[in-house]
Formats: sequence, structure tokens, C-alpha cells
Amino acid sequence: MTAPNVNTLWAETLVSELAAGGVDAVCLSPGSRSTPLTVAFAEHPDIKVFSHLDERSAAFFALGRARRTGEPTPLVCTSGTAAANYHPAVIEANQSGVPLLLLTADRPPELIDSGANQTVDQEKLYGDAVRWYRDMPEPEAEPRKVRMLRTTAARALAESTGSDPGPVHLNCRFRKPLEPTPVPEDDPAGVPDDWAGGDDAAETGRDGPFVTTSAGVATPDEVTVRRVQNAIRTAERGLIVAGPADQGLGADSLERLASATGFPVLADPLSDLRFGPHVDRLDVPVCGGYDGYLGSDGVSEWGDPDVVVRFGASPTSKPLRQYLRDADCRQFVVDSTGGWPEAEFTATDLLVADPDATASALADEDMDSAAETWRERFATAERVHWDAVEEFVTDSYWEGGVLADVTTLAPDPATLFVSNSMPIRDMDRFGRPRDADLSVLGNRGASGIDGITSTALGAGSATTDPLVLVTGDLAYYHDMNGLLALGRCNVDATVVLINNDGGGIFHMLPIEDHPTFEDQFRTPHGLDFEPTEALYALEFERATDRRQFRERFGESVQRDGTQVIEVQFDAGDSHAVREQLADHVAATLADD
Amino acid sequence: MTAPNVNTLWAETLVSELAAGGVDAVCLSPGSRSTPLTVAFAEHPDIKVFSHLDERSAAFFALGRARRTGEPTPLVCTSGTAAANYHPAVIEANQSGVPLLLLTADRPPELIDSGANQTVDQEKLYGDAVRWYRDMPEPEAEPRKVRMLRTTAARALAESTGSDPGPVHLNCRFRKPLEPTPVPEDDPAGVPDDWAGGDDAAETGRDGPFVTTSAGVATPDEVTVRRVQNAIRTAERGLIVAGPADQGLGADSLERLASATGFPVLADPLSDLRFGPHVDRLDVPVCGGYDGYLGSDGVSEWGDPDVVVRFGASPTSKPLRQYLRDADCRQFVVDSTGGWPEAEFTATDLLVADPDATASALADEDMDSAAETWRERFATAERVHWDAVEEFVTDSYWEGGVLADVTTLAPDPATLFVSNSMPIRDMDRFGRPRDADLSVLGNRGASGIDGITSTALGAGSATTDPLVLVTGDLAYYHDMNGLLALGRCNVDATVVLINNDGGGIFHMLPIEDHPTFEDQFRTPHGLDFEPTEALYALEFERATDRRQFRERFGESVQRDGTQVIEVQFDAGDSHAVREQLADHVAATLADD
Repeated sequence: MTAPNVNTLWAETLVSELAAGGVDAVCLSPGSRSTPLTVAFAEHPDIKVFSHLDERSAAFFALGRARRTGEPTPLVCTSGTAAANYHPAVIEANQSGVPLLLLTADRPPELIDSGANQTVDQEKLYGDAVRWYRDMPEPEAEPRKVRMLRTTAARALAESTGSDPGPVHLNCRFRKPLEPTPVPEDDPAGVPDDWAGGDDAAETGRDGPFVTTSAGVATPDEVTVRRVQNAIRTAERGLIVAGPADQGLGADSLERLASATGFPVLADPLSDLRFGPHVDRLDVPVCGGYDGYLGSDGVSEWGDPDVVVRFGASPTSKPLRQYLRDADCRQFVVDSTGGWPEAEFTATDLLVADPDATASALADEDMDSAAETWRERFATAERVHWDAVEEFVTDSYWEGGVLADVTTLAPDPATLFVSNSMPIRDMDRFGRPRDADLSVLGNRGASGIDGITSTALGAGSATTDPLVLVTGDLAYYHDMNGLLALGRCNVDATVVLINNDGGGIFHMLPIEDHPTFEDQFRTPHGLDFEPTEALYALEFERATDRRQFRERFGESVQRDGTQVIEVQFDAGDSHAVREQLADHVAATLADD
Repeated sequence: MTAPNVNTLWAETLVSELAAGGVDAVCLSPGSRSTPLTVAFAEHPDIKVFSHLDERSAAFFALGRARRTGEPTPLVCTSGTAAANYHPAVIEANQSGVPLLLLTADRPPELIDSGANQTVDQEKLYGDAVRWYRDMPEPEAEPRKVRMLRTTAARALAESTGSDPGPVHLNCRFRKPLEPTPVPEDDPAGVPDDWAGGDDAAETGRDGPFVTTSAGVATPDEVTVRRVQNAIRTAERGLIVAGPADQGLGADSLERLASATGFPVLADPLSDLRFGPHVDRLDVPVCGGYDGYLGSDGVSEWGDPDVVVRFGASPTSKPLRQYLRDADCRQFVVDSTGGWPEAEFTATDLLVADPDATASALADEDMDSAAETWRERFATAERVHWDAVEEFVTDSYWEGGVLADVTTLAPDPATLFVSNSMPIRDMDRFGRPRDADLSVLGNRGASGIDGITSTALGAGSATTDPLVLVTGDLAYYHDMNGLLALGRCNVDATVVLINNDGGGIFHMLPIEDHPTFEDQFRTPHGLDFEPTEALYALEFERATDRRQFRERFGESVQRDGTQVIEVQFDAGDSHAVREQLADHVAATLADD
């Protein structure tokens, strides 16, 4: 490879290696210092460019793509505060194990801490929130350095997608000229024709990635498998709990394990296991309503589970987490990263192993000794819960009902992104398991309400499935800038905007009765979001009753373009319906 | 002090000490974990609450207030990614030495790295960008701990406003209950009536702050003063350069130093010295047009300056920085923080001392040996430059002309906030020195285009002076969320929105000629900003010619409410006028 100057050589080499490693898209934000990377990405024939003006939204967009695909979409920004705007998404990616590749442009080392303009300390900017960090050396046309660069590209991809996926940060320093301007070859910024001195691998790379990484799969040893199987075999009341996980336990493995154990499955909406053909196919109940009945008086009479096998992160459902906390039982937590996702400190065994490999190994023989009554109880509770949901959805129009409707009406297949705060809780409780290919995603690592729209649109950009986003008014406001991607990045979505004018979730907390509640917690903003139609590439609609909502939603998922369907509620009213529904379910179960 | 539980005791104590230390306002963002702090701030009778839904905007708003006042406005947010949204403003505050006090709520230590919800690693979240960091101990009703808390409040204020002002981060951990809910006194969360055991200072604090901090003023010693004076005394061509500084050299000190030395003053628009009564009162020229003529052929014939005395940060003007770089001279840099703001590495002497104390000490005797011709040259160049600006402003309507008009039409007094990228450069070159009390502010520490609107509105919230913000379309888009503060925080502004549909600054760089220029650098967005009128508490107007602009601007600064006056330009055209004007000035000076 020859190049007009070392920056061009350096950036083109890095980008070509990333492409060779499978990168097919990039999120660029405009800036000067990043010019070599921007030009190299923009000119690469196999890389699609998503251009973002707000780096915070850019990072969440890349996070969303990676959530959906499991592969990183590199991010490029200029030096200075731009890179700090990535920080919220970096934390979310770290907490939920999503690949990110941050390429932050930086000033050359001689300008650091010199008072030079737009020069800040970018070293280890994200602290311990990244899997791997490198302060890249200064670009130079020197074979060993260029080999290092090619290796670094391969390693960055491997580190971000390995057994403990997450963010990787390469701080890339460039000295002027930043543009692909020819520089005489005897200038330090110049590139002599024979710079590689015959080192072809340095000069042109290899056929495919410079280093092909093959990572082993952590499989539990036989002794461990026997130990777990023995526990399962003697269990009368066992459970499989699938917590949030983007690239977690597969449905096939779950089916095998559930069939072999006979344990009911409690599937978090973010586990990727609440929906799919296994829901109808399995003999054991695949439960989605547990958030509504665990902890009620009737359930406490069933007796504690004696064995629980857990996959994924800590469940979204607080009643489930408390149920697991209070159960005196053997609790196996399977986590390939060894991340101890166990905030109640009740796990008895941590299996640091691949979820699929573990489930398959365990399911190797039939261990079903579970009491039939135990399965029946879950099956009954589910029926009671979903009957009640059906009744309450028909009789009233409220926030939870919207999530119930969205779940049943979502096209098959679809990508369904659910915001934090109330939407994910309502999805957890009112989103009924279905035989449908629904990829339900959320930012549940750090559970922020920032970057929701961008994450959803990023996920949507990675697939041709229809994209549905369910969000609240605070999240919609917080990442309004993310809506620019609709037009710029050509993503279509159906956005269900649940507007209760402020922080409805605080109605669920004791602060509701405090005089500061209204101004400092609920914080009504009175925003009319309709003008976002004139700002961004979207159609804004309102639905004032259930019939209208179902109609508009059904139309939107069929249609091109983006429709924002706003539904307005009083958060207190919706919370009252949630409570009535739960009371009704508890009463029915207690009568049983 | 008695309290229903330890969290309430802890938060009320912290807030009362901050109030005793002079804090009179706070920026709160809604969240649950921060409930004790939120309630304590909201209920304090002497503290004004600014409620912000987007923590990124909140932090810039607090930064803006601190820029204007020199005092920190504490920030409170919940745990998780919320705190990471403060990061861009923290970096800007660090770089430009502005006090910030970050109170991030966090989970109790037992939940860290446990998989618990919304629990992230907040320790040293901002790395080296803060002056002081404390992971606060767990709240407890114990005299020594509460004394520590009171001391910490005093110290946090002292650290953030000391001789090297900047951000301070207290990570505040709370365990439930977070609300002011009574807890029995024998519970660990309870507060026994006699918790302080007679330690009155712990219990009720003191009259005023718990610790009154008095910081000495770094004054140069006599030997140093003589050394600098000797250099000045023998100088034929001396200069005083005042770079950006919010709380820098005072006008009185500058006047004394300029009178004693006879050196022309080059005053950066952000130095707080380009405007004021000294402009007309001083015998030496107070220059503001140097960005337009330094480096031209005529000027190179004047001979190099032989002594330069510099205050503040590195100047905004690149021609000035290069002029200083190329001058073979004695260059004294005065910086009270010892921060070496000297990216061209030409300083010969660093004086780590207070700017006012230094200027006063130096001005103690008359050292004026400067050649009269030297002063004349600057006076002439200024006249030629400002005549040309007047001519070009009258003949054409272009971006720089808007800045020239804003500077002359700005009411006296006024706070004038100028965005990064082109507006501050145009202000630097076309903002003519005036005898008026204009507080010109910008985010020049890291020079980002993020958070501009919020910083301006924060500055405006701290004063009754009219507030003018001059911003570009990218900055306006980037911090559109900041506009919510207009209504919520009751700030009025005149916003001049220079819309050239993308990154006009890139026209000044060689990348202008590259095929990727349009899509990846200029990045036109085509946004119509008029709908921001319907979203936020503002009136949106457009001005299509100079007369209209001057009229609307003049009306707006007289009027209540916020008017956004959009002026649309082609960035390339505006850049052409800048070049013609510079050519004209250079030609006139060469002829002289």
C-alpha cells in the first residue's frame, strides 16, 4: 500500500483490517482531527457509513446495532468532549456485554497538556468500563508498527466480541496534515515507496484478517455436570430462569434442558426466550406472567423451589428476584463471563461456562422428577394472569394494556425495543409469550433512560424486520436528537410513545406522598411532541382509545416510513389498574 | 438535628453546609437513588432549584452559571449512566478552570458489581478531570462521621473555587429507605434522638460554614518582579496579551500595567478585557482586530516584539498564536495555576502567581520605554481593520458581519455567550472593542460544540443582564434539549442562530477539496428549526437581510421572553468575504 502521507496509510490500513475482520458499517461524527479515519471509512467500498451529528446518539446507535447483531459497529469522533459524549453508551455496553469499538481521534503526544485547543486527556477516558484500551502509537510508515496496527485491528474485534464481549477503546493520535495531502517522502509525514522493505504482510496484509482469532467455548467438566444433574434429579420443585441476555441461551438448548428436567421456564422479556416456537412446543409452561403473581399469598403456599438453574443477567422482575432471594434452595447461576450476576447473594453454585454448552451437557439425560403439581401450579397461574390481562385490556385503556397489545400485535418477525422505567416493567408483566420471532431488546445493563431512541434505531438499522420502539415521554425527550437518524440513516420504525407527562415510575415509590413529589420527581414538562414531526422524518399520530391505538399500530407496522403513535395517560390511573389487576390475580389464585 | 432516618440526616446536613458555604442554587435531575439529596435541596429555604431532565444539559447549565459567577452550582443525579452524561461538561470545566460540584447518587457498597439494577462503577468516573474526588462513606448518625460530612462540604467548595478552580466529585451512596420515612431508632437506618452525644458542632454545625477557608494569594517575589520589570524597561516593542479567562486579570490591573509599560494590549474576546471603560480610557491601543492583520506582509515589517507579557489561556486567534510562536522574544506567561498554557512552547518565563497581584506589582513603577512607532502601528492597523469591517458589514450580509453587529448592538450591560467553531472565531476577528460592560463567555476549554445552549442559559440564569447567545446550526441541534430550560428555569435570551446547514468551519480546511467533504465533513442536515418554537418557550424569527437582523436583534434584547433569530448563510460565501476583507486589510497595511 502506498499513500500520500502516514496518516492516510495508517487509517486505510486500520480500516481495511477491520473490514477484513467483518466490519461492514461505521458511525461517523464530523470533526477535523478524525479526518484520516473518516476519509478511510467513507472511501472503503464494503463499509456503510451512518453519519451522526450528536456523538451521544451515535454511540447508542452503534450499541443498538451490536445488540441486534452481536458484532461491533466502530465509532469515530474528533478529539475533546466529543469522546466524552460516548460515555453513557460505553457504560451500558460494559454492563450488558455488548461489543463497541471506539476510535477517538486525538492530538499528537507533544500537544497533550500544553494548552493547545480542543486537547483534553483522553487516556483511559472510560476507566474500567472497557475490555481493552490502547493509546495508539503515532502513525509511521514502518513495517513493525504497521504489523502492530493490523494485529491491533484483529485484536480489538476479538476483545470486543470474545467470551466477555464489551467496549474496546483505541485512542488514535494524528498530526497534521490530516487530509490525504501528498507529503514529500523525505518528510516525517511522507511515505517512501519502499517503506515496507519487502515485508508484504505489513504492506498489504493477508487474505482475510491479519490474525484469525478462534476462541474456545467454555464447557462444564463432567464432574460439574454430574453434580448439577444430581441436584436436578432429586428436585421436586425446579425452575429454569432465563434473565436478560442479547446473545444468551439459544431456544434449542432451552428446549432440550426444559424437556430433560421438566422444570417450568420463567423467561424474561429480554432473554430472547419469551417468544418463539418453543413457547407452544414445550410441555413445560414457558411463563411470562410471573411478575404479576410471584409473591402473592396463593403462591407462597406452593412451597419454595428446591433447585433453580439461572441463565442471563439478573431478571427484570423485582417479584421474581425477591422470590429467588427468599427461596431456600440450590441455585445454579450459569454465566460464561464469570460475572456473578447475583445481587441477592443467594446463588449456591456459579457455573462459568457457555450457556448453550452447559444446557446441552445437562440435558444429556432425562432427569425429570419434578412433581406434576408444581408444573400445574405455574400453568394455572399463567392462565389466571393472562385471562386477567385480557379482561383488563378490554375494559380499560392504560399503559400496561398498550404493552400487552404491542406484544400480541407485533408482526412476526419483528425487532421490539422497549425503554427502561415503566415500559420494560409493563412488557415484563403484560407481554404474553407467543410463538413468534420477536427480538425484544432493551438497555438493561445500566437501565438508563438515555439513548433509548438511538439504540432502537441502531438495532433497526441492522435488520429488515419491522422495528417497534415502545418508549416514555422522558426517554423520548432525552434522546430527541436520536430521531435525526430516521432520515440520515434511513431507518423506519413504529414508535409507541407513552406520554404521562413526567416520571410515572415515581408513583410506585413512597416519595409519591411527599410534597416534593410533583416538582422534583414526577417533574411534569408539558411538552407537546407533535412538532417533532416537522423537525424529523416522521409522522406523528395520537391514539385516544384502544381501538384507535390497535388500528394505528397495525397500520404502521405494515407501512413504510416512521410513525410515532402517542398515547397519553395519567400515570397514577395506570398504576391503579396495575394494582387492581394484581389484586384480582392474587385473589383468584388464593381461591384456587 | 433530628431526622426520620440516616439518609435524611446525611443529606440535610450536607445541603445545609453547602448553603452555609454560599451555595444558593442547585441543578436537580429526577431519579430515585438521589431522593435524599433532592428532597434536602428542594426543601432548603435559601436554595433555588433548577430542574433538568437531561443530565448532559444540566451539567452545562451549571457550568454556565459558574462561568458567570465564579461559584459552583451543585449538580444532583441518580445512579448509572445519568452521571456519565455529566462527563462532557466536567471536561470543559476542568480545561477552563470553572467550579462544578457533582453529587452523584450511588448504590450502597454491598451492591457494587453484584448485577443489581442501575448499578455501575461510578468510582473516579471522571478520571483526572476533577480537582477532588471522594467516595462518600455510608450515611450514619455518628458524630465523627457527621463532622467529616460537614468538613467535606466546606472542602468541596474550597477545592472547586480555589487557586486552581474546577470540578469536584462526591459520590454519595444511599441504602433504602431513600425517602424521609421514619425508621425506628434501633434500626441501622434510624436516628436516635441523642445520636450526637452532646457534640453540638456535629449536630447543628456552626454559625456560618463548618470550616471557613482562607486561601492565600500567590504574589510574585521581589526578585522576580525586578527581573520582569528589567525586561520590560528595555523593551522597544512590548505587548500585553490577554487570553481567555473567566475570572482572570481585572480591568483595573490591566490599566495600571498598560499605563506603566506603554505596551499595546491584545485582548481576546473571552478575556473579559476587550470591552469596558478602559478601552477608551487607555492611552495604549486595546486591540481586537489582530486576528485579521497579524501575519500579513505589512505587519512582518514592524519587527518582532521583544517582550510579551501573557495572561489567561492560549489565545483564540491562530494568527496571534503563530505570531507569538515566530517572534524571537522574551515571553512571560502569568498563570496562577502553574498550568503552562503554552502550546507553541515559546514561553521563556512562567510566573505562577495571581494575575492581578502580578500586574499590580509590575506596574509599581513607570517602565515605559516602548517606541511610540510600535504603538502607532497597532493603532493604525486597528483603524484600518475596523474601517474595513465597517465597509464590509455595510456592503454584504455574511456570518462575520452578524458578529460585528451583535458586538456593537449588544446592550450595556449584557452577557454574550458565543459558540465554538465559527462564531467565536468571527467574534474574535469582528467584535470591536467597546466601552461597555459586556461579559463575553464561551466554552473554550475543550472547544466542543456540545452543551452550548445550556451553558449560555446557565450563565443567563445567574444575572439580570440581558443574555445574548450566538450559535451555529450544529451546536443548536446538538443541545436542543437545553432549550427546555427556557421555560423550566425561567431564563430569557436573544439567540442568534447562524444556520449554514452543517459544518461551515470545514470550508477553512484543506478537506474542502476532497470528495468526502460534503457528506462527512460539511454534513448538511437540512433541519428546519422553526418547530423548536412549538416545542419550547421561544419565539422563532428569521432575518433575511442586515437591516432586518439589526431590527429584530435590537427589539429582542429589549423584550421579555426568548427570541431565536435565525440567519441563513452559505458557509462558502461567508468564508469568501472573510478572505476578501483580510486581503483588503493586508493590502492597505502594505501600502502604508
